Amino acid sequence: MIDVAILGATGAVGQRFIQLLEGHPWFRITELVASERSAGQAYRDAARWVLSGGPSDEIAAMEVLPLDADVQAKLVFSALPASIAKEVEWQMAEAGHVVCSNASAYRMAEEVPILLPEANAEHAELVKVQREKHRWSGGIVTNSNCTSAPVVMAFAPLRKFGIEAAQIVSQQAISGAGYPGVPSLDIMDNVIPYIGGEEPKLETEPRKMLGALAGDHIDFLDTVMSATCTRVPVLDGHLVSISVRFAEPVSEEDLIAAWDSFVGPDPVPGLPFAPPQPVIYRRELDRPQPRKDRDAGNGMACVVGRLRPCPVMGGWKFLAMAHNTVRGAAGCSILNAEVLVETGLL
Amino acid sequence: MIDVAILGATGAVGQRFIQLLEGHPWFRITELVASERSAGQAYRDAARWVLSGGPSDEIAAMEVLPLDADVQAKLVFSALPASIAKEVEWQMAEAGHVVCSNASAYRMAEEVPILLPEANAEHAELVKVQREKHRWSGGIVTNSNCTSAPVVMAFAPLRKFGIEAAQIVSQQAISGAGYPGVPSLDIMDNVIPYIGGEEPKLETEPRKMLGALAGDHIDFLDTVMSATCTRVPVLDGHLVSISVRFAEPVSEEDLIAAWDSFVGPDPVPGLPFAPPQPVIYRRELDRPQPRKDRDAGNGMACVVGRLRPCPVMGGWKFLAMAHNTVRGAAGCSILNAEVLVETGLL
Amino acid sequence: MIDVAILGATGAVGQRFIQLLEGHPWFRITELVASERSAGQAYRDAARWVLSGGPSDEIAAMEVLPLDADVQAKLVFSALPASIAKEVEWQMAEAGHVVCSNASAYRMAEEVPILLPEANAEHAELVKVQREKHRWSGGIVTNSNCTSAPVVMAFAPLRKFGIEAAQIVSQQAISGAGYPGVPSLDIMDNVIPYIGGEEPKLETEPRKMLGALAGDHIDFLDTVMSATCTRVPVLDGHLVSISVRFAEPVSEEDLIAAWDSFVGPDPVPGLPFAPPQPVIYRRELDRPQPRKDRDAGNGMACVVGRLRPCPVMGGWKFLAMAHNTVRGAAGCSILNAEVLVETGLL
Amino acid sequence: MIDVAILGATGAVGQRFIQLLEGHPWFRITELVASERSAGQAYRDAARWVLSGGPSDEIAAMEVLPLDADVQAKLVFSALPASIAKEVEWQMAEAGHVVCSNASAYRMAEEVPILLPEANAEHAELVKVQREKHRWSGGIVTNSNCTSAPVVMAFAPLRKFGIEAAQIVSQQAISGAGYPGVPSLDIMDNVIPYIGGEEPKLETEPRKMLGALAGDHIDFLDTVMSATCTRVPVLDGHLVSISVRFAEPVSEEDLIAAWDSFVGPDPVPGLPFAPPQPVIYRRELDRPQPRKDRDAGNGMACVVGRLRPCPVMGGWKFLAMAHNTVRGAAGCSILNAEVLVETGLL
Repeated sequence: MIDVAILGATGAVGQRFIQLLEGHPWFRITELVASERSAGQAYRDAARWVLSGGPSDEIAAMEVLPLDADVQAKLVFSALPASIAKEVEWQMAEAGHVVCSNASAYRMAEEVPILLPEANAEHAELVKVQREKHRWSGGIVTNSNCTSAPVVMAFAPLRKFGIEAAQIVSQQAISGAGYPGVPSLDIMDNVIPYIGGEEPKLETEPRKMLGALAGDHIDFLDTVMSATCTRVPVLDGHLVSISVRFAEPVSEEDLIAAWDSFVGPDPVPGLPFAPPQPVIYRRELDRPQPRKDRDAGNGMACVVGRLRPCPVMGGWKFLAMAHNTVRGAAGCSILNAEVLVETGLL
Repeated sequence: MIDVAILGATGAVGQRFIQLLEGHPWFRITELVASERSAGQAYRDAARWVLSGGPSDEIAAMEVLPLDADVQAKLVFSALPASIAKEVEWQMAEAGHVVCSNASAYRMAEEVPILLPEANAEHAELVKVQREKHRWSGGIVTNSNCTSAPVVMAFAPLRKFGIEAAQIVSQQAISGAGYPGVPSLDIMDNVIPYIGGEEPKLETEPRKMLGALAGDHIDFLDTVMSATCTRVPVLDGHLVSISVRFAEPVSEEDLIAAWDSFVGPDPVPGLPFAPPQPVIYRRELDRPQPRKDRDAGNGMACVVGRLRPCPVMGGWKFLAMAHNTVRGAAGCSILNAEVLVETGLL
Repeated sequence: MIDVAILGATGAVGQRFIQLLEGHPWFRITELVASERSAGQAYRDAARWVLSGGPSDEIAAMEVLPLDADVQAKLVFSALPASIAKEVEWQMAEAGHVVCSNASAYRMAEEVPILLPEANAEHAELVKVQREKHRWSGGIVTNSNCTSAPVVMAFAPLRKFGIEAAQIVSQQAISGAGYPGVPSLDIMDNVIPYIGGEEPKLETEPRKMLGALAGDHIDFLDTVMSATCTRVPVLDGHLVSISVRFAEPVSEEDLIAAWDSFVGPDPVPGLPFAPPQPVIYRRELDRPQPRKDRDAGNGMACVVGRLRPCPVMGGWKFLAMAHNTVRGAAGCSILNAEVLVETGLL
Repeated sequence: MIDVAILGATGAVGQRFIQLLEGHPWFRITELVASERSAGQAYRDAARWVLSGGPSDEIAAMEVLPLDADVQAKLVFSALPASIAKEVEWQMAEAGHVVCSNASAYRMAEEVPILLPEANAEHAELVKVQREKHRWSGGIVTNSNCTSAPVVMAFAPLRKFGIEAAQIVSQQAISGAGYPGVPSLDIMDNVIPYIGGEEPKLETEPRKMLGALAGDHIDFLDTVMSATCTRVPVLDGHLVSISVRFAEPVSEEDLIAAWDSFVGPDPVPGLPFAPPQPVIYRRELDRPQPRKDRDAGNGMACVVGRLRPCPVMGGWKFLAMAHNTVRGAAGCSILNAEVLVETGLL
């Protein structure tokens, strides 16, 4: 078993890491790290558990360590806020830890991959660039913004058709804002048509994630994206409406076949957190739905539906959905770590 | 006072007609008409009231008439289902009634206007064509699908810039499906990404509504629209995300000025149900919101916000919202009737 | 017109004061007071408006004053947090202001009334005791906790039957917790069966409010109450389930007649904020409902329903509902001020 | 493996049976039975799946049988509406099937048990009485109304203290009403304080379930219960507030110890669907919560919290919660069937 530490263990994403790692065949949690306020307390006292049930008795009894603790585990999952992640993750990588991070702090750094293994497992090679450039023995691997996840998963099998442009409107779950996050007085019986900083991320991250590894950096996919991000009264699961124009003519069958047959590159298929079918195209008229589809593939699959021609783009439109705190956050980080183990980078 | 009858008085839209007409300065309800099942009962027993409060004591005590009753009022508001409206509204028009209808049955008939007075009050002239063509003394005027309403209101002031193409993603309230309508087990903690028949309406109706009166018919606006319609857990208020390409270069100031200064053609301004400002552009980052903005202008205004450039359309994107059962249904029908009165067509 | 100042004007209850006072026939807002953080800004910049629409342009442009400002208005409405109210309200009363407070700070002070005029208008006389005791020219009048309001309104007409004991289970709206208040991640698809400090208030306040003025204090009603308070996913409107045992045998007709005929003592009936019928008994099987009944009497009425015998209490059980931020907060304070004006205490 | 048939397989509870039986170590579904309308179709076409995900491919492909089919499986789970269950279940029992029913049709029949094994496994003996009385080789075993489940589970360990009287207020999830069930227009942002027929069930069923087997019938527990049932915007999980008076003095420690140590009689502990700890007392101030606690013990546990003295009852008050379609419906029926297998009654 490989020891792991969780940074930001008391927050909403930290809790999801703990929940998902319970019973993991390779990883076991040995250290929980959080801010000064929580440090020194038992986890059960430090964390206000927002998920179903509660942590295991073993986790509940663990003492929370401060951010400046001398962490032992080589593998570190980070659920830190971006502002804190900036400093702490760098120090961790310097000190020899491999950080699989959910924070946005380093996503756009040239030598850091935004890893979503089914789409770009080979980007993990950038860890070697980091080690050379910064003389680290550790490294940093990020996962994407939670809304980029369904976009990238739906587009990964379609890259071969030439993705020229895409319009994206998201309907995002409240858990994407963390805890306490969205006040109920704001969101009940309502839609909030704005999420700070989200649209620029959605217009940029997928281009890097779908890009090509070019030695010491990623060549971004040459495409243009336009995003509108909204918040809806849904607990988990980000839904995106996508209209896309391809470089070449593509048929409905081509697209569905591309999704149905997609499994991602080696060594992804078969990893503990890799869903058997990463992209599930549902033929029902009214899918994907966040509540009914977010647990597909244990929350790691992207569910797609409603493929129809788009007369405005001269291409196609469809909807895609993925679980924002599993596939779009903690679960993806765990799969990223599995890739690092399997490729010898950890 | 002008007597009015309400067809389909017991349903959700029928109730909204009753609620909105209470205290109307010109119109008073004298007949309530509904299906056989309800006919002969007092309204309070026949209708399961779904809005706040309840009907006035006077309305509650009125006897519900059957669909084949000899309706006395010349002005008739129809909240009938499309299938029944097809036959009943025609008979009513033949019998000399002026039907202001919320049903979709005749929206696409060449000689029937889809009236949204701020955008196209002059289309009411088609009633004369009906009278000549069918030898009616009455007539039929429809209002649009509830989702077309915010689209047409937002676009009406922008026609002068040349609307070449538009991408629309809607987030629609549950009241749009009537009562009992959407099961709570379907929509709670969920989004349903499909509404039967809605997308074709949204891609067509606005083109007619924004078109030009050409003698005995409407020349549709020459534009292409692509729609995705979803249902969200919101009681009232349909929100649409719109990306649009214009024929000519337009600035942010041009667009906002067009909305701010828009009042619609005579005789609309000053009518009882005409909102003082039909389109309200809000500068806050997070508006429009269904719950906070649906009552703007007593539910008759369209609230617009978040104007930004759209890199994919090479134009602009924004969000618009209007109350679906007021502006998008009963309220618009009442305003339509006011226009007919004011222009001597009733 | 009487000038009024609002303390805590930027919070959720402060906003409700502003909304309700718009167009009030006697009162006009001349000063808005809030914490240091907001002071000096225009109200539109200082307040994050959580209600529908927005404040009037006039209010939006007013400069927010700091808590230590030299307030001019004699009449002051307080929406301050209890901890701050403790000091500020006392100073205000000392300085000659009459404070109509929504805060809990002085509710249990012997010489301070918890005024709900239909039930206990005569308690306002305690202001004279305050003036004598503290040598104030001003005074403090509180309104009750928002959940005590429907309990006291439903019980006020029944005091004559001898209320021996009552079991109360509340289902409270999220607006009762202020803004940001209840995180959506806590309450969506959920009930929270605990509200800090609420149950002791509900077991005590009604006994004072339903008690008898005895010179310089209130003799509490001799009864025992047991409360369980829960939070439900409802925006506005607190619903309470009540089982009660009376000292003497009472019939269903007695109880309903008592509610139906209840108007409260002089000078309440006819005051601007006094609802025509304070307690509305609805005979439908499924009322009262928060969403459908909270606006009864402009939010100032208490709606009661489902009266049935209680085999355990040997008495009766029923449900009662009132709008928590109108009748249970700002609206009640305004009615309290009207009573003070009418009785010459202001 | 024991073959099982599901009656009413296409409805909401029928779907839950299918979901819960997937992977059951003893039972395998071999027949799906539903109304004429569904018969002859593949299950995937006949059922509108309302739970997460969907049925397995194998189930989805099974042909739905009509109600008058010659069912082969000896063990039959019934999710039929009460009106249909009345006839069909009797015929099934006559024909030699053992019916584990979720319907209310026979709950009050003298020779039929309302089985909740942890509380009354020995009531299963009534099946022998049925066989003798009706000359059946099969039999009927019911489970309780979904709201009686948490009441009976919380009370079972407390019977020894003498339950004299109880006040119960329920907050019930929408899934309790089946599909389509509660219209979203009724329940969103609302509480409905009435559920047809529910209160009498809640005042009666627990007395039978907690009663003593007396030869050919059950002696009801000698206690009085008063119920108020409400519907709240929650998907799954019925929460009940209970105030209870005991025959003898009991301490907080006594009560919690009774819950903590409760496992139910043989042969329940260790059965596949028996939760390791049937009643879980949580010490946090704000539990049980439907969303966070409904999956405790795989949905088969009852979670209790907030034990405090009740000054009105002179006893105690607390809250209890159980998953209404698992513990309160399909899951309990499955556990009932396991008891029948283990005791040789099947």
